[in-house]
Amino acid sequence: MPKIDARLKELGLMLPAKMQMPAGVVLPFPWVNVRGRRAIISGHGPLEADGSIAGPCGKVGAEVSVEEAKALARKLGLAMFASLKTELGSLDRITGWVKVLGMVNSAPGFNRQPEVINGFSELVLEVFGPEVGRHARSAVGLAALPFDLAVEIEAEVEISE
Amino acid sequence: MPKIDARLKELGLMLPAKMQMPAGVVLPFPWVNVRGRRAIISGHGPLEADGSIAGPCGKVGAEVSVEEAKALARKLGLAMFASLKTELGSLDRITGWVKVLGMVNSAPGFNRQPEVINGFSELVLEVFGPEVGRHARSAVGLAALPFDLAVEIEAEVEISE
Amino acid sequence: MPKIDARLKELGLMLPAKMQMPAGVVLPFPWVNVRGRRAIISGHGPLEADGSIAGPCGKVGAEVSVEEAKALARKLGLAMFASLKTELGSLDRITGWVKVLGMVNSAPGFNRQPEVINGFSELVLEVFGPEVGRHARSAVGLAALPFDLAVEIEAEVEISE
Repeated sequence: MPKIDARLKELGLMLPAKMQMPAGVVLPFPWVNVRGRRAIISGHGPLEADGSIAGPCGKVGAEVSVEEAKALARKLGLAMFASLKTELGSLDRITGWVKVLGMVNSAPGFNRQPEVINGFSELVLEVFGPEVGRHARSAVGLAALPFDLAVEIEAEVEISE
Repeated sequence: MPKIDARLKELGLMLPAKMQMPAGVVLPFPWVNVRGRRAIISGHGPLEADGSIAGPCGKVGAEVSVEEAKALARKLGLAMFASLKTELGSLDRITGWVKVLGMVNSAPGFNRQPEVINGFSELVLEVFGPEVGRHARSAVGLAALPFDLAVEIEAEVEISE
Repeated sequence: MPKIDARLKELGLMLPAKMQMPAGVVLPFPWVNVRGRRAIISGHGPLEADGSIAGPCGKVGAEVSVEEAKALARKLGLAMFASLKTELGSLDRITGWVKVLGMVNSAPGFNRQPEVINGFSELVLEVFGPEVGRHARSAVGLAALPFDLAVEIEAEVEISE
């Protein structure tokens, strides 16, 4: 069994199905774009196991609590791993996480974006370990996100050829 | 005639003149920064043919409709192609689009950022085709943009040496 | 004396101490992540000489003036140089600035983000010169930032091995 798949199993983590696109939505780009040894990951939202968008949706600090948002960021991480596995064939091809941009749909006055995105960063470190999982990061407050997602994250990883 | 220039002509598309900077504005950075085989593209706004800022300006979902904003994202794409042509000499040097960050000046409650940025993505695919034009993407809602632009996009492409 | 250290001294500039994290805050990522010849820089805020967060905090255009925010962006630049020096050993290893994403905590109607981020860009150019310091840039308005920072910037530089 590939190493990262074994690690996911050990942690009791399951990757969700491919995102079920809401009716009428066309996204003319891939979830992961490979160019040489770079795999650039499009903005992802959190998914349920069946690939439907995971809620609650709305603004963190108002409709969504910081604890709920942190849990959504962790679900989002699993959705990103699923996209990477589909594109790369195996998650073992990832030789290093490069960077993460965590975007939190923020209510006026909400300033705890890092706690929310820690749900994602902690998952990456648990699954990939401190060397491969090490990533630069920003965690910031957006005015609005597609589908009223509470959290959206884009990232980049380095891969073996 | 270079291949991409011929393709633009075939599609009836013209690149705008270099951006006319509003009075008193100094931007101490280039529109495109080449480092090795990477060409990193600064945030661009939509331009008219003469290089003046293309309107309407303001928040999408309030002063600017989603259809207007999508058309602005397409104009923005042509402005970006113009900057790339100036910096690279020829658009044929572009071997692959890497990533796109689409930033939409969003009114409260506006959540259709992907439709807006599709105006840009569809143009890239029409002009560069599905392989070279393939790009990772995020499309998100900003609280404010310079000059009250409705849309701003930054991107990166891979180039031949 | 390393060349960039000498240049900082010549300009009378001092790098601040490492950031003093506010109580209870855990950031599970490094300030700079090196992958091959890329050094990717996490989102930084402005620091005082002792590593405490530099204020004023809040929204630019309301609680924070554009002049104050520009000065904060310059302080932020020195904090980023400090992180780079810690990670790289010497700032002379930087062979080229690649890109800068300037995020301004923006009050409704504030649209002068480029002036604010010029405080950072001008510092990079003063210290590293026009060739090494050359960078692609976006300067945009965020709805909220961690700790109510007025300005946050992430960036990437190219380094010698």
